[in-house]
Amino acid sequence: MNAEIICVGTELLLGDVVNTNASFLAKSLADKGIFCYYQSVVGDNAGRLNDLLKQAMSRSKLIIITGGLGPTYDDMTKETVAEVLGKELIFDDEILSKIKAIFAKSERPMTENNKKQAYVIEGAEVLDNDNGTAPGLFISTEDNLIVLLPGPPREMKLMYETKLQPKLEALNNIKLVSKKVYMTEIGESYVEEILKKEMLEGTNPTIAPYALEYGLMLRVTATSEDEDEANRLIEPVINKINNLFHKYIYSINNESIEDVVVNKLIESNLKVAIAESCTGGLLAERIISIPDSSKVIDLGLVTYSNSQKIDLLGVDAAVITNSGAVSEEVALQMANRVKALGNADIGVGITGIAGPSTSESKPVGLVYVAVVYGEKVVVKKLNLSRGYTSERTRIRRTSTTVALKMILDIMNSDI
Amino acid sequence: MNAEIICVGTELLLGDVVNTNASFLAKSLADKGIFCYYQSVVGDNAGRLNDLLKQAMSRSKLIIITGGLGPTYDDMTKETVAEVLGKELIFDDEILSKIKAIFAKSERPMTENNKKQAYVIEGAEVLDNDNGTAPGLFISTEDNLIVLLPGPPREMKLMYETKLQPKLEALNNIKLVSKKVYMTEIGESYVEEILKKEMLEGTNPTIAPYALEYGLMLRVTATSEDEDEANRLIEPVINKINNLFHKYIYSINNESIEDVVVNKLIESNLKVAIAESCTGGLLAERIISIPDSSKVIDLGLVTYSNSQKIDLLGVDAAVITNSGAVSEEVALQMANRVKALGNADIGVGITGIAGPSTSESKPVGLVYVAVVYGEKVVVKKLNLSRGYTSERTRIRRTSTTVALKMILDIMNSDI
Repeated sequence: MNAEIICVGTELLLGDVVNTNASFLAKSLADKGIFCYYQSVVGDNAGRLNDLLKQAMSRSKLIIITGGLGPTYDDMTKETVAEVLGKELIFDDEILSKIKAIFAKSERPMTENNKKQAYVIEGAEVLDNDNGTAPGLFISTEDNLIVLLPGPPREMKLMYETKLQPKLEALNNIKLVSKKVYMTEIGESYVEEILKKEMLEGTNPTIAPYALEYGLMLRVTATSEDEDEANRLIEPVINKINNLFHKYIYSINNESIEDVVVNKLIESNLKVAIAESCTGGLLAERIISIPDSSKVIDLGLVTYSNSQKIDLLGVDAAVITNSGAVSEEVALQMANRVKALGNADIGVGITGIAGPSTSESKPVGLVYVAVVYGEKVVVKKLNLSRGYTSERTRIRRTSTTVALKMILDIMNSDI
Repeated sequence: MNAEIICVGTELLLGDVVNTNASFLAKSLADKGIFCYYQSVVGDNAGRLNDLLKQAMSRSKLIIITGGLGPTYDDMTKETVAEVLGKELIFDDEILSKIKAIFAKSERPMTENNKKQAYVIEGAEVLDNDNGTAPGLFISTEDNLIVLLPGPPREMKLMYETKLQPKLEALNNIKLVSKKVYMTEIGESYVEEILKKEMLEGTNPTIAPYALEYGLMLRVTATSEDEDEANRLIEPVINKINNLFHKYIYSINNESIEDVVVNKLIESNLKVAIAESCTGGLLAERIISIPDSSKVIDLGLVTYSNSQKIDLLGVDAAVITNSGAVSEEVALQMANRVKALGNADIGVGITGIAGPSTSESKPVGLVYVAVVYGEKVVVKKLNLSRGYTSERTRIRRTSTTVALKMILDIMNSDI
């Protein structure tokens, strides 16, 4: 089954909103072996949506349309789809009751225009919205499956996962299995040189590289009517990649590095404490973004000034004077001190210069990351500038990715 | 001049990467009065890119293609465009020297496949890449302007801003001016009810609403051949919106709330200190993401456990026992204590339950935010759950947005 994604919204065409819906749907469909050759964006314009829908219906079996189901005047997806299909819109009292209940719960007034969301296209199956007010619709015609999903990403995602995906699984019999190998501190072109033959010649499975902010992801994908068979096809390729790049790999699943670190800490019954300077809370934030992180972190400190490093954290003032706040010694003291203050097993200290301006006559992009765990001590000096402009976000983000990898490595190492 | 954006990359079609390039380009072009009616995504597939480019050339004057300029085998944009235009690819020694210099600076080995990036389409103008290795190309034909930009967003953005935008400004004489009014703690449907007439009937300027995570943005847009005239058209509408919604508005520019808060703190010569529990460093992180934030923040604490709230921050243990860690009293003590510890002017305390699980028999989504400044004290109790699933990220993000607005309000208030 081939699919096509149409995202409706002038805010997308004007670039006021990033289109995360297209990537979520494309990825979710691909994971089920349904490939999209077309993704399009169209504004809140009935004429162009009408034309695009007709074109899509002629070339794709499944058409998923997101957006334009809301209460305001410029939401016109239902009206346009009904027109193309020659169907009526029918008022649904049950939907209205649900919308009223949502407004009542959050103690907000329900304005008149919200009633617009209670109209459905005749013959369509209603997909309940468990994260919002506008329901989705599933329409089956002779040649097509047309699905209308709401535009707000958290509404769309939940509806896709709980309502639409089970329907699609029942309809599609090709299984696509893919595993993603995540690596850090290694570049795309270097990996490709080593795996070029497999990348070019592989057909089932295929290997495709994607550059990440400080490393890359290799996606290994196999298709089969039998899911076990697809898994068997993937296994030797994953093993080969693992053997070649073991020290750079942090995950062979679809997990983020934050997930891997938090789960490993939980599993090992260890706690981490973090002292950050240039990364300003980003490392703590990335760890605490994971549910259950309360089991592994009690304390994070953002000591952005020297006086806070000295007074609160207890870094030696003489060391700051002699080596500078951005130094191996200070990173290490930060790690050790926060570990003690937080009564943690693992301590992390990060100090560096994120830019755009610098101090201490040290270059932008110079960052020291220290991780201590029992007798184990690792300090890394990073030069993250490439002489490019506007590197602040990248430098801060990369520093925390390196720190996450170091936390993982120090737990896994025998030294 | 009408434009069309084509983003190339199988990673986009598979949804492994979110298409931020399309939104950046659409927004930047719209800001210059160049509107895109079409955005498409195509995989690393020469045949489909070939077809799409021909279709685009027949309907759009300016075609911007991003991606597929890199060193690996699946990068084929230059080759495909050259084929459609009937042009040759020519090796450029100067580009190769620049690529070699970049690898030398970052002490990475330059692999053979990187040389691929030194080929250019005959007759094309080279757009230097100041943030990476692959240069862009600008090609002018009888009917079209075709621009090739690199796929990595930070390379593409800088090249657009410094190399392409000046060229486009010289070519386009319609000026489009838009101002964005950002509001928080108010809903889209409520604002629309009040401004419905203006939204429906306005043509120059137009008013369009966009829902944000905890509020909305109203975009007011006017066009004219004269920029001053466009500004004059916008002014009365902005004034009207400002009068109607003053207390909800935090910015009438294109700045983020983080920008507004940091700039106001700098201007007022004030420092903020932050103690966070459920938001885990996110508020500190959002403030420190802004350059020059070192002038306004020295200290952020993530006290995720009760013992750290008591031992390090100095919250009264009895208060935690009596009121619970998630309480108005604890938020207030956190704000006061971190203000004292950080020797700051403004103190912020956040405590709450981000979920998915809860404790203290309090509901997920209950968050207290306290802000203190001199004699001024504000504590807000938030109920951020709407009974939806997977609310952790939204609850944490919204709590910090509310805190940022509270910091702004407390500086601006006379009380």
